[in-house]
Amino acid sequence: MPDDFPPVILTIDCVLLTLPSDVPAAGLSVALLMRDTAPFEGVAALPGGYVHADEDADLEAAARRVLAAKLGIGGARFFLEQLCTVSGSARDPRGWSASVVYYALVPEARLAGGVGRLAPVDALPQLAFDHAAIVARAVERLRAKTSYSNLPGFLLPETFTLPELQDVYERVLGLALDQSVFRKRMDEMNLIEAVPDGFRKGGRHRPAQLYRLRDGFASLHDRIVAQRPRGRR
Amino acid sequence: MPDDFPPVILTIDCVLLTLPSDVPAAGLSVALLMRDTAPFEGVAALPGGYVHADEDADLEAAARRVLAAKLGIGGARFFLEQLCTVSGSARDPRGWSASVVYYALVPEARLAGGVGRLAPVDALPQLAFDHAAIVARAVERLRAKTSYSNLPGFLLPETFTLPELQDVYERVLGLALDQSVFRKRMDEMNLIEAVPDGFRKGGRHRPAQLYRLRDGFASLHDRIVAQRPRGRR
Repeated sequence: MPDDFPPVILTIDCVLLTLPSDVPAAGLSVALLMRDTAPFEGVAALPGGYVHADEDADLEAAARRVLAAKLGIGGARFFLEQLCTVSGSARDPRGWSASVVYYALVPEARLAGGVGRLAPVDALPQLAFDHAAIVARAVERLRAKTSYSNLPGFLLPETFTLPELQDVYERVLGLALDQSVFRKRMDEMNLIEAVPDGFRKGGRHRPAQLYRLRDGFASLHDRIVAQRPRGRR
Repeated sequence: MPDDFPPVILTIDCVLLTLPSDVPAAGLSVALLMRDTAPFEGVAALPGGYVHADEDADLEAAARRVLAAKLGIGGARFFLEQLCTVSGSARDPRGWSASVVYYALVPEARLAGGVGRLAPVDALPQLAFDHAAIVARAVERLRAKTSYSNLPGFLLPETFTLPELQDVYERVLGLALDQSVFRKRMDEMNLIEAVPDGFRKGGRHRPAQLYRLRDGFASLHDRIVAQRPRGRR
């Protein structure tokens, strides 16, 4: 590292989002930890830590290490994506810092008995640093992607029924969706697939087909584009 | 900075995209500089540099400093957005590094007589580090946002005609668009506005109305959502 520039603090912060099943449902919630050191001692904060260049292959590996060490989320499949990098001299009283932020979508069951507390994203307590703004950005990203991806499905267990999936979309967006429009869009977008011979028996109702996410996320570029390649008009 | 973790190299890289007006048109192009030091001496690379924590208010300020110092792009309004942060031990032979990447959209006229060379994004020369992958990601982001924003308009001068705007969308997407569908979508999305009394006289044609970008970018969340707030169904 060249020594003609002052070193910077590089950290990782993780926004783990989940949908609690409490009644009444709290809505989309974020996992927080109480800080036990200054600055912001005793204030809730996102799980985070320093990048360990000697053990983290890259920043995503650092985020996975933080999630495993601080929230017990590891191993199996969950959604994790880089959100942004926040920076500057104003965000941490210790000096100029940059923090690379990842957000994770995890079914509530995976958090059972885990550490950390959940707070609804629409009613956050005081958070350390610029963490409230970071949570808002993660929620904005999730809501924006919800309209053209199967992202909310990562908040469900591996298999789910269509009404369960619609409920998750509605809770993420905070909007009611028309059932037939929702099912038609899901069909068109090809984001989920039926589990062969997978049914959930439900009391007096007939068994409900179970679905799972397809790999990859479709994104739609058909708003203003025609389907012919550019050439002579 | 705590000294129990090894320091990391934190840099900025800038993907400046523009649309050259050469005939035949080269298509979407990126500004490159030739490296004059190792590693990758003599190889083309994205303009970049170290973060100067003592003078850069934040990472965006660092990106603006790099663009001004290395490409002469400063002052006036242009589109600049953080793309991602790339990282790891494999990308730079000098050691573990993280680079925060910004992409900029600039009209060709702003680059006139400037330093750097332009290379079409679809026919890049060999690039240093992981810069080819970074350019591909910036193009992917621009193309994805093109379908629901006025982003391609930032590749034009401040005022433009509708045929010029459609041409830019087509060149960014590499697709031909239907004129009436394009105009209808532009109208619905409310992304541009007519310049009052702004017309361009064109030979034997009648004068063409000039438009400019509205502030802000509309994004559309109406794909699968209904317009009533969630509540009792």
